Amino acid sequence: MKPRVLKVFAQLDPAPDVILLANAVEPHLDQTFFYLFDVPAGLFEGSVAIAHPDGELDILTGALESETAFQAAKGDPHVKVQVVSREETEAAVKKMLSGSATIGLNYRELTHEWFVRWSKLFPDAKWTDTSNAIRTARVTKDPHEIELLRKAGDIGSKVGRDIPGLLKAGMTELELASQMEYRMGQLGASGRSFQTIVGFGAHGAEPHYSPGRTQLKPGVSMVCDFGCYFARYASDITRSFHFGPRDDEMKKVHEKVFEAQQAALSTVRAGVPAKEVHLAAQRVIDDSPWKGRLTHGVGHSIGLVVHDGWGYGPNAEDSLLEGMAITVEPGIYLPGHGGVRIEDDIVVTKGGYEFLTTAPREYIEVAA
Amino acid sequence: MKPRVLKVFAQLDPAPDVILLANAVEPHLDQTFFYLFDVPAGLFEGSVAIAHPDGELDILTGALESETAFQAAKGDPHVKVQVVSREETEAAVKKMLSGSATIGLNYRELTHEWFVRWSKLFPDAKWTDTSNAIRTARVTKDPHEIELLRKAGDIGSKVGRDIPGLLKAGMTELELASQMEYRMGQLGASGRSFQTIVGFGAHGAEPHYSPGRTQLKPGVSMVCDFGCYFARYASDITRSFHFGPRDDEMKKVHEKVFEAQQAALSTVRAGVPAKEVHLAAQRVIDDSPWKGRLTHGVGHSIGLVVHDGWGYGPNAEDSLLEGMAITVEPGIYLPGHGGVRIEDDIVVTKGGYEFLTTAPREYIEVAA
Repeated sequence: MKPRVLKVFAQLDPAPDVILLANAVEPHLDQTFFYLFDVPAGLFEGSVAIAHPDGELDILTGALESETAFQAAKGDPHVKVQVVSREETEAAVKKMLSGSATIGLNYRELTHEWFVRWSKLFPDAKWTDTSNAIRTARVTKDPHEIELLRKAGDIGSKVGRDIPGLLKAGMTELELASQMEYRMGQLGASGRSFQTIVGFGAHGAEPHYSPGRTQLKPGVSMVCDFGCYFARYASDITRSFHFGPRDDEMKKVHEKVFEAQQAALSTVRAGVPAKEVHLAAQRVIDDSPWKGRLTHGVGHSIGLVVHDGWGYGPNAEDSLLEGMAITVEPGIYLPGHGGVRIEDDIVVTKGGYEFLTTAPREYIEVAA
Repeated sequence: MKPRVLKVFAQLDPAPDVILLANAVEPHLDQTFFYLFDVPAGLFEGSVAIAHPDGELDILTGALESETAFQAAKGDPHVKVQVVSREETEAAVKKMLSGSATIGLNYRELTHEWFVRWSKLFPDAKWTDTSNAIRTARVTKDPHEIELLRKAGDIGSKVGRDIPGLLKAGMTELELASQMEYRMGQLGASGRSFQTIVGFGAHGAEPHYSPGRTQLKPGVSMVCDFGCYFARYASDITRSFHFGPRDDEMKKVHEKVFEAQQAALSTVRAGVPAKEVHLAAQRVIDDSPWKGRLTHGVGHSIGLVVHDGWGYGPNAEDSLLEGMAITVEPGIYLPGHGGVRIEDDIVVTKGGYEFLTTAPREYIEVAA
């Protein structure tokens, strides 16, 4: 049986007779399909996965990616791949689920259109929302997942180390972003895991800024928030730099964010309430001249997507679990002036954590 | 009023009192949010749009991207942006929709979880599925959209012209893909619009292949299927090349696919049943030694996503409309040997079409 299928069902009491997952059209794909099937590549639009309580997994997919699917299932007696056309999918599912009274769905990643389709196909079914069970299973990583996250993190870290050498007066945010993404590809990434953020100067004060044609001028700080996919697993790293000459306030801001991240990291271990991690960073910032300038939660889980189902801030109710992969990313944002954010990916261990991303976090001033 | 809001409502008779759109977490974002709001950048996770029959648009978004949102709404009296926290969103929507009895939703891009949330918030509402109206509105493009599609297409075309010069024996598929993506970024793209496909040799026979570590060897053909985003609008272009020495069969295959694409294009004009476009290409291929080797529909609409809501094959029921942006992409796939696909983006006009992508389509043999 597939351990990940069992891991999901272990969260469900009572368990449904099956869990039924459906991918719509990109970007509306259920990442849980990829979590359970563990197929390293392919889009699998319109494909369906049926997970059984005994750990067996059925995959229904079209001809376009059948080779990739068969390759992934090869040698695994617990995965059965069937090739069906889009038109045949519903009839095939109907047949396979004829004995199932309760059907679990991942409400969080299923489109409502697919739900309506399933409702018509199984008018008497009892639907249950298994998204929390899926999230709980996915949020702690198995060793293979950690290996892939580490590879994605390594690539991001290498690029983080390279950024100071790429900076040139006059370059645009988009140019720097595309050079960073190119390097990730050269290092083996299958793509970026989200739109690279490069914010020069005041743009660094908007946490979700998108890079534009603003040129790099001496005397500004910048926020570079980026990451890549390696075999579907994501990294997410932020480094902030100063392009000289020095701005005394921004140097102090950087040092304060570094201190806040260290404070947050020092609290991390399995069993700690996640809000404690946030509050450790927030306290450092709120005890500084930049009180209130941390405007977001300090982290989120990371896995098959960058925001992998769970985030934490001052009101988080969950505690950290062994094997969780999370980001720790405090920042200070000064509207109209600039921002500093430092973000790393870590895996929570019994007694602490391991870094998935490295690259220096301290204040770096690059000569203009 | 926002013309795009009116365009959607024009498809609805009877019209609901409002249309309510909600973004979940990336990748589960409703692209219609971006279609109606026309905000050039930003993720807008958890944000909500409320479209009114009189063309007014309300946007509820969090603090993270409020600057981007206000900037996009600036000077437009028909868009109102409100900044609310995630926790406040439901209460704000409840208040704003207090007088609405029928609420339209985009079932195709709404997660079922959000539907359940809305159902609890408005237990007496009458829900209507407005996805077809939204698709119909989005599938024909306005001049501003065509301008952006053309820019995205120009970037793809430039890279298509560059590929022969990038080929070197020994390079991997992933290396070529990352060089292509880097060039798109350098040319102003905000990112690739889907995972770049580079399939050397036999890998070219799998239409949705993902690039790997296979190295380029003399004597093989390759399929390069790629595209980028420019201000959220996508391009999607495929070019096939041969890395010498010549393979006589693959040269003939290329010429046949070229002929099939020309045949398909020659049928295009507003009012033509889309299946005719497909069948024109299929006939050319089925009258050749490679009968049956076209294994997919010949095209799809393109816009805010690469597969923008509609595709066509031999059984398509819709006809082409003026202003539709679509791909025309026949291919011949020879398992174990190789494949050729040629794909362009076009806009359908009254009497024919205009290319959004250029770059030579004919057989190109690159000396190894």
